[in-house]
Amino acid sequence: YRQLLWERSRTVVTLTVIAVTIGCIAGFLQIFTETLVNWKTGHCARNWLLNKSFCCSVIETSPNNSKRLYDFKLTKRDELDCLDEGLWINWSGYITPFPIFLILSVSFSLISTLLVKYVAPMATGSGITEIKVWVTGFKYKDEFLNAITLFVKSIALPLAISSGLSIGKEGPSVHYAACVGYTVANWLLRDVLTFSQQSEYLIAASGAGVAVAFGAPIGGVLFGLEEIAASSEFNASTLWKSYYVALVAVATLKWINPFRNGMIVLFNVTYDKYWTKGEIPVFIFLGIFGGLYGKYISKWNIYYVHLRRKYLTKWPVQEVIILTIFTAFISYFNEFLKLDMTESMGILFHECAKGDDISAFGHRLCQLDKTSNVGSFIQIISSLLFATIVRSLLVVISYGASVPAGIFVPSMAVGATFGRAISLFVERFISGPGVITPGTYAFLGAAATLSGITNLTITVVVIMFELTGAFIYIIPTMMVVAITRLVLNHEGIKGGIADQMVFVNGFPYLEYEKEDLFMKEFSAGSIMTTNLKFLYETMNLAELKDFLYSGDGLKLKGFPVINESDRLEPTKRCVGYVLKKHILARLLSPEMDFSNPEMITVSLMSSSKASQIMLEGDDILDFSDIVNSSPIFIKKNVPATLLFRMFKQLGCKTILVEESGVLEGLITRKDLLRFQRIKHREVFGPINQSNK
Amino acid sequence: YRQLLWERSRTVVTLTVIAVTIGCIAGFLQIFTETLVNWKTGHCARNWLLNKSFCCSVIETSPNNSKRLYDFKLTKRDELDCLDEGLWINWSGYITPFPIFLILSVSFSLISTLLVKYVAPMATGSGITEIKVWVTGFKYKDEFLNAITLFVKSIALPLAISSGLSIGKEGPSVHYAACVGYTVANWLLRDVLTFSQQSEYLIAASGAGVAVAFGAPIGGVLFGLEEIAASSEFNASTLWKSYYVALVAVATLKWINPFRNGMIVLFNVTYDKYWTKGEIPVFIFLGIFGGLYGKYISKWNIYYVHLRRKYLTKWPVQEVIILTIFTAFISYFNEFLKLDMTESMGILFHECAKGDDISAFGHRLCQLDKTSNVGSFIQIISSLLFATIVRSLLVVISYGASVPAGIFVPSMAVGATFGRAISLFVERFISGPGVITPGTYAFLGAAATLSGITNLTITVVVIMFELTGAFIYIIPTMMVVAITRLVLNHEGIKGGIADQMVFVNGFPYLEYEKEDLFMKEFSAGSIMTTNLKFLYETMNLAELKDFLYSGDGLKLKGFPVINESDRLEPTKRCVGYVLKKHILARLLSPEMDFSNPEMITVSLMSSSKASQIMLEGDDILDFSDIVNSSPIFIKKNVPATLLFRMFKQLGCKTILVEESGVLEGLITRKDLLRFQRIKHREVFGPINQSNK
Repeated sequence: YRQLLWERSRTVVTLTVIAVTIGCIAGFLQIFTETLVNWKTGHCARNWLLNKSFCCSVIETSPNNSKRLYDFKLTKRDELDCLDEGLWINWSGYITPFPIFLILSVSFSLISTLLVKYVAPMATGSGITEIKVWVTGFKYKDEFLNAITLFVKSIALPLAISSGLSIGKEGPSVHYAACVGYTVANWLLRDVLTFSQQSEYLIAASGAGVAVAFGAPIGGVLFGLEEIAASSEFNASTLWKSYYVALVAVATLKWINPFRNGMIVLFNVTYDKYWTKGEIPVFIFLGIFGGLYGKYISKWNIYYVHLRRKYLTKWPVQEVIILTIFTAFISYFNEFLKLDMTESMGILFHECAKGDDISAFGHRLCQLDKTSNVGSFIQIISSLLFATIVRSLLVVISYGASVPAGIFVPSMAVGATFGRAISLFVERFISGPGVITPGTYAFLGAAATLSGITNLTITVVVIMFELTGAFIYIIPTMMVVAITRLVLNHEGIKGGIADQMVFVNGFPYLEYEKEDLFMKEFSAGSIMTTNLKFLYETMNLAELKDFLYSGDGLKLKGFPVINESDRLEPTKRCVGYVLKKHILARLLSPEMDFSNPEMITVSLMSSSKASQIMLEGDDILDFSDIVNSSPIFIKKNVPATLLFRMFKQLGCKTILVEESGVLEGLITRKDLLRFQRIKHREVFGPINQSNK
Repeated sequence: YRQLLWERSRTVVTLTVIAVTIGCIAGFLQIFTETLVNWKTGHCARNWLLNKSFCCSVIETSPNNSKRLYDFKLTKRDELDCLDEGLWINWSGYITPFPIFLILSVSFSLISTLLVKYVAPMATGSGITEIKVWVTGFKYKDEFLNAITLFVKSIALPLAISSGLSIGKEGPSVHYAACVGYTVANWLLRDVLTFSQQSEYLIAASGAGVAVAFGAPIGGVLFGLEEIAASSEFNASTLWKSYYVALVAVATLKWINPFRNGMIVLFNVTYDKYWTKGEIPVFIFLGIFGGLYGKYISKWNIYYVHLRRKYLTKWPVQEVIILTIFTAFISYFNEFLKLDMTESMGILFHECAKGDDISAFGHRLCQLDKTSNVGSFIQIISSLLFATIVRSLLVVISYGASVPAGIFVPSMAVGATFGRAISLFVERFISGPGVITPGTYAFLGAAATLSGITNLTITVVVIMFELTGAFIYIIPTMMVVAITRLVLNHEGIKGGIADQMVFVNGFPYLEYEKEDLFMKEFSAGSIMTTNLKFLYETMNLAELKDFLYSGDGLKLKGFPVINESDRLEPTKRCVGYVLKKHILARLLSPEMDFSNPEMITVSLMSSSKASQIMLEGDDILDFSDIVNSSPIFIKKNVPATLLFRMFKQLGCKTILVEESGVLEGLITRKDLLRFQRIKHREVFGPINQSNK
């Protein structure tokens, strides 16, 4: 009965365990990052270890159970109170702050990169690309998703972020969430998990990673669908799993309450002014900016990755250190670069409220509306444009360095500063003050660059809303994202930076692209491997072992099984297909200890000869249960396009080629991809130079 | 050059035309419905034809371009002003109002059902089921998506809704949108459109239908994905098409501005109180209610559909009239049933503001918070529960009547009244006044019932947010929907009412369900048709015509093409597959006018014999371009599970069965489904009784 209960509930239990773990890690990450970041600027008076939120939260004295929302909206005010009351002390003096800032930044990034280098090299970078490849059916290295990588990524990520590098946490969040999904699913469902089920758990967990990184449960689910599962099968069952995991993970995070303000919406802006039709040209302009940003940043980043591989492979740690020092020097002296990226976006998105000069949101940006001083206008707009350009360049050289690093948040920050600069222009030269809502331009700019770098549409729109709650701007947001996408399509960019990295890293990835017209003329006959190694329906155990442990038997992963009566014929009829790992598993099992292998017959199919031997009383091993007796056969004239669809959509790894019942060849996924790459190179030249 | 431009832009142009058309129809529908509904209660003083919004909008005197949002929030106040100023006159007196109400209701529904009966019978009901079946690969009748159905559905839907029946507009909106997509795509892309591309346009248009019905662009896209495309392939290109169409359609609708308030958000509530952990049990309770609602309402509705087929088939018009009268009598005397469903939901969702006794939202519900009079408490709660029960029953008997009818909005209305009743209970007996936000319970109840009846998760959550903008309730909403789904899963309900209708209507629908374990033991050999009709590589034209126009040739849709040299052999080797419609298209083309068909040879494959005849100078027709020379072959032992996947995921219609190169049989999608249905019946008994 217990068994039955477990069988009925194990899916839900597994999903819950995955989700709660992801939520807890996200909470830890949030608090740890904030602590490290806060240390760079000050310390808590009563306890060095506390970060600002925890340190200041004593003054929140609201015994009323039903806190009204405006309690939370004023957190930034609380922060100023907190400083005034002496609970939190900022580093002060003319000289001290910057050295402390610099030293802490460098030590954080140093620890981070050393952890990555010596403990888990797989924890570097974003990880989205690898997971995408994994769920399409190519298992990447096992270490990529194991517990050590999970641990290192969870520690090294906060360190890397708080070192001030221009990197985000969402890519790595996807990676650690996928690690959790993989580890937990393999542990709880080890006996029943198939590869495609495993992919479902990975997709669901990856989505939850985005969900907790942004506090955006629906955005996370859609990310899993639009980005991770784009090239694999996405069905209703995956959707429901993603939904459930994202919900529980975000609920857990909310329960942990890492920001100490009860909110999971990161920015919570309330735009109370509606947009007008006259603003549409500006929206289009922002969309175009997003598209161009996406195109050039990913191009330059890939170029820089090639440079790094050529010149910097031997000095990953030194590269990170120099990058940190460089970033710290540039950032410290620009008000938008110095702040934490999310904090600076919070300020940029915020609508200037009348008479709100004292809260932290009452930034100089807002006062600009009133005093039309040309000097301060030029100063602030150049500061914004400087931040835009420098941040873009920092993204190019930071993404891919040897620390855990994402590219979403920095891209959004670039878009936000650019959009805010545009809003100042528009307000001064076109609309006049008080007509537009400047914060919305920053918001739309962030949506455009995020969409440009990822090439996602609906996911970006939903994430932006979940970040801010600014629902009345739904049409402008969708419009900006659509324009960005159209620009990318027009420029011929397929896929976001994660997709482009697939090619840069030379991963196998199954996607028949429509522009690969050169593949149309080829059919199975020209792609297949003809140099085949077979097994026969019945084999001598010694003969089988010899075959498996020598020559091609060592290299290949599976073998066609040939009709017994064709052993001596030149034409072979194939009756099944068997994977080497299954045979080895049988041969290595403890009860397989035979002193005299020559005398034992292995029967791979339940054929007449096998039953005859059985009748004669000889020793026989029945392996017919591990042979796939109905593999997929095609004919030689099947076109390559259909091959792509069969591999992708039937999820098979090997297809046998037959003509008139006679086995002619065999095609694996990798055969097909290798063929495609070779032809691609013949047509377009080497991949590296074509920036694919 | 013009040709090139058209080729590059035709996808975007087609999508834009589809979207703008959908937006315009939606705008017309909105205004027309409102006019009809308003006529039932009053008329405009200066022009009988105007509806309330248009009639009253003269008093909107805001020359300021940047309307602030609170202008719109007070529309309901404006309405009262409008009455006071005498612009709009309600029917008054003791007797007059009800007869006018009744007579108009009956005439609206009469016109609607007559239009459906005599002009376009396909315009009845919802249409979601048929579209779902269509996009999985079974083309339903052509009339289902043609221009006449589109026209009738667009006229009959507003009439049916304003007759007061418990029906919604989203299902029919999906249908008319799909009609637009089908008609426009077939017109603009007639020469290049394949079936699977057509499906993409249908999915995108269907999504836009929901988007304009609810003013929810993202919800629409997700609906297309989660409901319409659930069983077919959903790829990145469909997602982008859906996104674009939904955006443009909603932008068009917004530009038309049918509500005259500049909003597309239907309800726009602003909950400023956060939820507390203590409310979670109530959320769970609402989720369970949603699940049970979904289970029983669809069960009873299907039962009622069977009853209707048995007893009422001959009197569809009479049924609709009686239903209208019955509904009018019941609804007129309950304050929640009398109102338009969206209007009543607006009131139920709304948060009671302090001191807001004069606006239309200052309903008696709000005053109840202050005066704890037991009598009025009992009166209002029984009114709410009465509305819940009666509306549920009305849904059961209305959905499926012979008018265009959706089930989403009525279901939401049921959930809203129920949730609001619960909120009154909680406020009075558990929490005490001022702790909970009663409107949110109505909101969550609506989410639960909508999810229960459709079995959708993420779509429902997103639609609810787009309807209201109440983002801070994201976790409770997701929780309620998840509970509803878990309840449905636990009860063994697969799919929403649209899926269940597939079985009720006996549509072919390709889905291998996991519980159909009985299919596991069957393989291709037992499913295939062995009674085959062939064509040969070269045939005499007269012989071919005889074959096509007689006996089985008339019935079948496609034929295997057999190797010429096997003409007299018992074993036939198949070299291709040809569809009858392609041969007929060739034979019926004008240049095919031969006086002497006996002398002409038709060559179906470019074989040696064909070239030999060509050399001899005889007349030959080359048909080899219409023959699929690489159809999909399988062996007899391929299991049924793989067959399901091949049909579904490769999108093929026919699979040939071969053994050792010899053709043995043929399986079509319908063969497989027929086999499944028969076996299902053998195992579980007749489908009707098992309520599948």
